[in-house]
Amino acid sequence: MTTTAELALPALTALSLGLPEPHGFGDASLRRRRPGDIELLGGIPDDSALPVHEVLAATERVLTGTVSGPGSFQYSQSAGLDELRAWIAAREGVDADRVIVTNGGFHGLSLAVLTLVERGGLVAVDNPVFPLFLRALELSQAATLPVSVGPDGLDVDELEAHLVGGARPSAVYTVPDFHNPSQGTLPAEARVRLVELAERYNVVVIADNPYRELRFRGADEDFGAFNSSEHVVHVNTFSKTLGPGLRLGWVVAPPRLAQAFVRLRNRQDSHTSTLEQRIVIDLLTHDATWFDRTLVGARALYRERADAVVDALTERFGDLIETRRPDGGFFLWPRLTDPTIDPTRLYEAAAERGASYQRGEFFASSGRREFADHLRLAYGNHPVETLLAFVDRLGDAYDSVR
Amino acid sequence: MTTTAELALPALTALSLGLPEPHGFGDASLRRRRPGDIELLGGIPDDSALPVHEVLAATERVLTGTVSGPGSFQYSQSAGLDELRAWIAAREGVDADRVIVTNGGFHGLSLAVLTLVERGGLVAVDNPVFPLFLRALELSQAATLPVSVGPDGLDVDELEAHLVGGARPSAVYTVPDFHNPSQGTLPAEARVRLVELAERYNVVVIADNPYRELRFRGADEDFGAFNSSEHVVHVNTFSKTLGPGLRLGWVVAPPRLAQAFVRLRNRQDSHTSTLEQRIVIDLLTHDATWFDRTLVGARALYRERADAVVDALTERFGDLIETRRPDGGFFLWPRLTDPTIDPTRLYEAAAERGASYQRGEFFASSGRREFADHLRLAYGNHPVETLLAFVDRLGDAYDSVR
Repeated sequence: MTTTAELALPALTALSLGLPEPHGFGDASLRRRRPGDIELLGGIPDDSALPVHEVLAATERVLTGTVSGPGSFQYSQSAGLDELRAWIAAREGVDADRVIVTNGGFHGLSLAVLTLVERGGLVAVDNPVFPLFLRALELSQAATLPVSVGPDGLDVDELEAHLVGGARPSAVYTVPDFHNPSQGTLPAEARVRLVELAERYNVVVIADNPYRELRFRGADEDFGAFNSSEHVVHVNTFSKTLGPGLRLGWVVAPPRLAQAFVRLRNRQDSHTSTLEQRIVIDLLTHDATWFDRTLVGARALYRERADAVVDALTERFGDLIETRRPDGGFFLWPRLTDPTIDPTRLYEAAAERGASYQRGEFFASSGRREFADHLRLAYGNHPVETLLAFVDRLGDAYDSVR
Repeated sequence: MTTTAELALPALTALSLGLPEPHGFGDASLRRRRPGDIELLGGIPDDSALPVHEVLAATERVLTGTVSGPGSFQYSQSAGLDELRAWIAAREGVDADRVIVTNGGFHGLSLAVLTLVERGGLVAVDNPVFPLFLRALELSQAATLPVSVGPDGLDVDELEAHLVGGARPSAVYTVPDFHNPSQGTLPAEARVRLVELAERYNVVVIADNPYRELRFRGADEDFGAFNSSEHVVHVNTFSKTLGPGLRLGWVVAPPRLAQAFVRLRNRQDSHTSTLEQRIVIDLLTHDATWFDRTLVGARALYRERADAVVDALTERFGDLIETRRPDGGFFLWPRLTDPTIDPTRLYEAAAERGASYQRGEFFASSGRREFADHLRLAYGNHPVETLLAFVDRLGDAYDSVR
């Protein structure tokens, strides 16, 4: 057609213009990777913990079976297949009509933002925060109210002080188990208080819980408070247990919000792959003990790796790095204790030596430069010897900048 | 927690409140189906035309192969896997960076609406129109400018008259091949004119082309005009050829819009299933002739069905129904020629006899009651004997209301 130079270009919507290219968090993933580089960048499960052969066997059963066969290739309901919703509902302890299948956990966050956060609204968020949630918030151009997260997760007192002081966010976002990035877990009693606050001030808790099944030390904190209120959207996923590439997750929501998510989904992509849902239903139900047995192995794997990094950091850095042993999940959030160390120079010196991590300052939700003295190390998808080599390189880098 | 009755409920966003429960089109699909009912309701491919065994073989190759294996379970790029984009790009005759993989064709429409249609904007649309596009437009609460569709597709003269007269839609939506619901195909020269108009008036053509590969009579109309302008988003899908349950489609867009779609997708569900993309890549490339060979069989199947319905209608109704023989796709759009027949009574009498179709009036985009004298018959997923039984029942129903 006509050459572009002569033409006015189509106008993009305000929504589209409000979605910039990623920057900060994620930059390192975009760097050209050199052979031998060790990247502790993302909350990625280990290849060896993913059910490749089991998925193949399940696919054979689904596609040669009489029940589903070609039906797996046809349209299905936006809320998800009944059998998958029923399995999830039993695990969550809720009615199946409160479960909506999504394309992974992030999709649940996105549906919650579009449904609950008015354009230009206010949302209370973890500080430090999972940075991709801030990207989801760009869909609503929302302002953020940072709330501190410590070793015991979200500071509910601080949130209450904001609410008592008049702040009126429409939602509060937190990762309750094995916080991303800062490792902490919100105790059960604080969950109850958080939900009570949400009900009192008409705020919706967006509880983002992808790592819940990966506790490898200590006792589970009860999540019942997240599944029994009109004021909570509880987001979960198979990404960390069956694999993120499947894009298969779910939300537990009160029926009114679950219906609103379905109406939105009707205008988005209709439903999650019928075939993939059928395969996962077979995987989860063909042998009812399989999923939990698999988790036992995965947890042992991630515990070994977490401990290896903590031990190596302690041995190599002593008091120069403050670190806590994680109870689950994929992340370590060590802090540099020597204030004379320049974190940017350390990051660059480590990258030069082929050791990459996420810089702490990328996780601030305050708009200020915070957490620059922290490193986020994602240990899930590297064997122990690689993790030890990473700590060696980080140690060399540290020596070069002190 | 506290009982709901005492609590204020969370406020939903204007976006969410603007998305009502489906009504009109689709109602019939929600009716309780009785055994023996024949439903010619949706643009659904036949089970026998879907590659069940081939997908299983491809899955085996992918999951036991050395290249992808567990990688199929991991995160991948929002734009889609390079190999899939390359295959699509070759078929479309474009550079791969213009191809974005989506969760089915409808997802492409939804991305285009959010990116191009400002809230409260104006969009020119087919009349009659694929009603689900109007649902996608609810994401932007857009007003519609109906443009007639005839046996040769969209009336480009009528669109031009609107534009010359001062109408300034941000987009124009049309189904160019085997129109849904009205069967027509837009000739190649009209496509060129449509794109030229779009460029002159800075409108974006959303060309929704899910049935393109299913021509079973006559020569293809060239689609090059849709792939070579800054002012076209060309939406396609594997839904009608490999199965809608896969939720696997694509858009061809100018790079600037392709990038905007990726930025939106980054905030939505990150990417389409890596596993499913890998399986389909294998399916399409393991035997480079397979896809086209499969289409030959599918086209013959749908031609036989289309002809069977047309012949049976002609034999049963004579001049009482005006019908055209389709050149491809899944739809027949017959018209009742006797103005004394009440279409609502006919629909109900047919439903009582176990014969359901979509009522023509559901396809009006004008807000007026139009096309009530039309029936949309979707013949794709029923064998010939079922289609003949449908026509018998419809004939009985007709006799009961004349």
